[in-house]
Amino acid sequence: MNGPTVVDSVTALRAQVRDWRRAGLRVAMVPTMGALHEGHVSLVRIALERAERCVVSIFVNPTQFAPTEDLDKYPRQLARDLDRLRDAGAHLAFTPRVSEMYPAGFATKISVGGPSGGLETDFRPSFFDGVATVVAKLFMQAAPDCAVFGEKDYQQLCVVRRLCRDLDLPVEIVGAPTVRDAHGLAMSSRNAYLGEAEIEIARKLNVILRQTAEELATGADETKATGDAAKALIEAGFQKVDYVTARQAMTLAPWQRDRNGRLLAAAWLGTTRLIDNVEILPG
Amino acid sequence: MNGPTVVDSVTALRAQVRDWRRAGLRVAMVPTMGALHEGHVSLVRIALERAERCVVSIFVNPTQFAPTEDLDKYPRQLARDLDRLRDAGAHLAFTPRVSEMYPAGFATKISVGGPSGGLETDFRPSFFDGVATVVAKLFMQAAPDCAVFGEKDYQQLCVVRRLCRDLDLPVEIVGAPTVRDAHGLAMSSRNAYLGEAEIEIARKLNVILRQTAEELATGADETKATGDAAKALIEAGFQKVDYVTARQAMTLAPWQRDRNGRLLAAAWLGTTRLIDNVEILPG
Repeated sequence: MNGPTVVDSVTALRAQVRDWRRAGLRVAMVPTMGALHEGHVSLVRIALERAERCVVSIFVNPTQFAPTEDLDKYPRQLARDLDRLRDAGAHLAFTPRVSEMYPAGFATKISVGGPSGGLETDFRPSFFDGVATVVAKLFMQAAPDCAVFGEKDYQQLCVVRRLCRDLDLPVEIVGAPTVRDAHGLAMSSRNAYLGEAEIEIARKLNVILRQTAEELATGADETKATGDAAKALIEAGFQKVDYVTARQAMTLAPWQRDRNGRLLAAAWLGTTRLIDNVEILPG
Repeated sequence: MNGPTVVDSVTALRAQVRDWRRAGLRVAMVPTMGALHEGHVSLVRIALERAERCVVSIFVNPTQFAPTEDLDKYPRQLARDLDRLRDAGAHLAFTPRVSEMYPAGFATKISVGGPSGGLETDFRPSFFDGVATVVAKLFMQAAPDCAVFGEKDYQQLCVVRRLCRDLDLPVEIVGAPTVRDAHGLAMSSRNAYLGEAEIEIARKLNVILRQTAEELATGADETKATGDAAKALIEAGFQKVDYVTARQAMTLAPWQRDRNGRLLAAAWLGTTRLIDNVEILPG
């Protein structure tokens, strides 16, 4: 089986998508930063359930990294990524250079309020501006019918949904369940930074979140339950907890016990920051 | 001759444009805030030189008015506007309510840097955020091939061009020459606020700008020439001058004598704020 066609210019991307569209084919997009793992593969599979063609963008977007963050060491492994995309059945890999996405004179920023409030934004203030701007650009470049985003980055999924509704972007946003290892650890490109002992600790994140979500669903006090979860993460070996917070599932407004909720967390293992989230059933 | 079809929902707008597109017709858009005058009519005529169908949006966009500005008194006259559009040959008028453009939960803002710096932004700090956001939305809603904007709002034209380039919006932006009365007064919906004596004064704005641009093109000192122009406006009867500034024609970066330039001004007549601009030829 052939691997995906690789293009690095917007012109070539548009030409291919236009040809597909003229042939009556639906086009799905999976935006990624590369370092592809089973989670990304599942996004491509879901994309191909909804469209005949799948474009995967691989672009480590500098505008969503703060100067102190891991832009330079973020894993880049294009050959391996293309192998994975071939196996997953993706048709086109769009691998633009930074200068193709942000040419000289670039001066535009999209800010999404609402679901971007708090959580990641408290610790990465410009992160969602970077995400919203690059996602809008990718959608304008590729003009997909739909795009698939993982629930692993749950707040990002909510922000992208809000972005598309607010700017009337004609792209259906599909959320995809988080892929986990046998111990429930969410697949993440940043897991590559972890040693074996750290992986053991990292696996406790989802266990503690699931247990806390269950407690919240069955009547536990919100402040006590999330505070206990943060303590449990430290006891499990995490060095620092950025947040463990319950929110409403769609708007990320403050949690209400009688509605669908989401429990979200971010915590540090050494110099690696992990995030995860789980459903809270309405009580 | 029939007037334009009037739709107030995005759904109806998209359905009409989709039908045209299926029929192989090119679609142009003219975004307006209504209170249409000869300047707008010229935009529609230019649109129809470039496309078989013309959509005109009429939407007094609240997000580009500051709380102190004239949102409530901005002239609204839909029946007259539709007469003008019929005469101009526009095919569709899109007249959304505020709730159609900004439904509950709306939370997204587009900020364009670069050409938005200074000039209008010094006096209307949120103006171009409002313009950029609504223009992006209108383009996503109507999906036109091209859109026509008047040079009267010259900084706006530069900001919209930058917006489209930066976000890869697949819309060609066409700038249209300012329509003026026999005395050179630029057509503007806000001229309706002016009494007869004020109109006489307003007509001096373009005269003073043309004269100053000529002086700049033939070697005058920039600071002196623009300062003299501001003084001349006050002497002519304007109560206050917000700015008279020379800039580079495309980027609106600081003026350079050997490049195409633009001389831009904003000044107050009573409670009415007028803007205008003229070309500066390279020296």
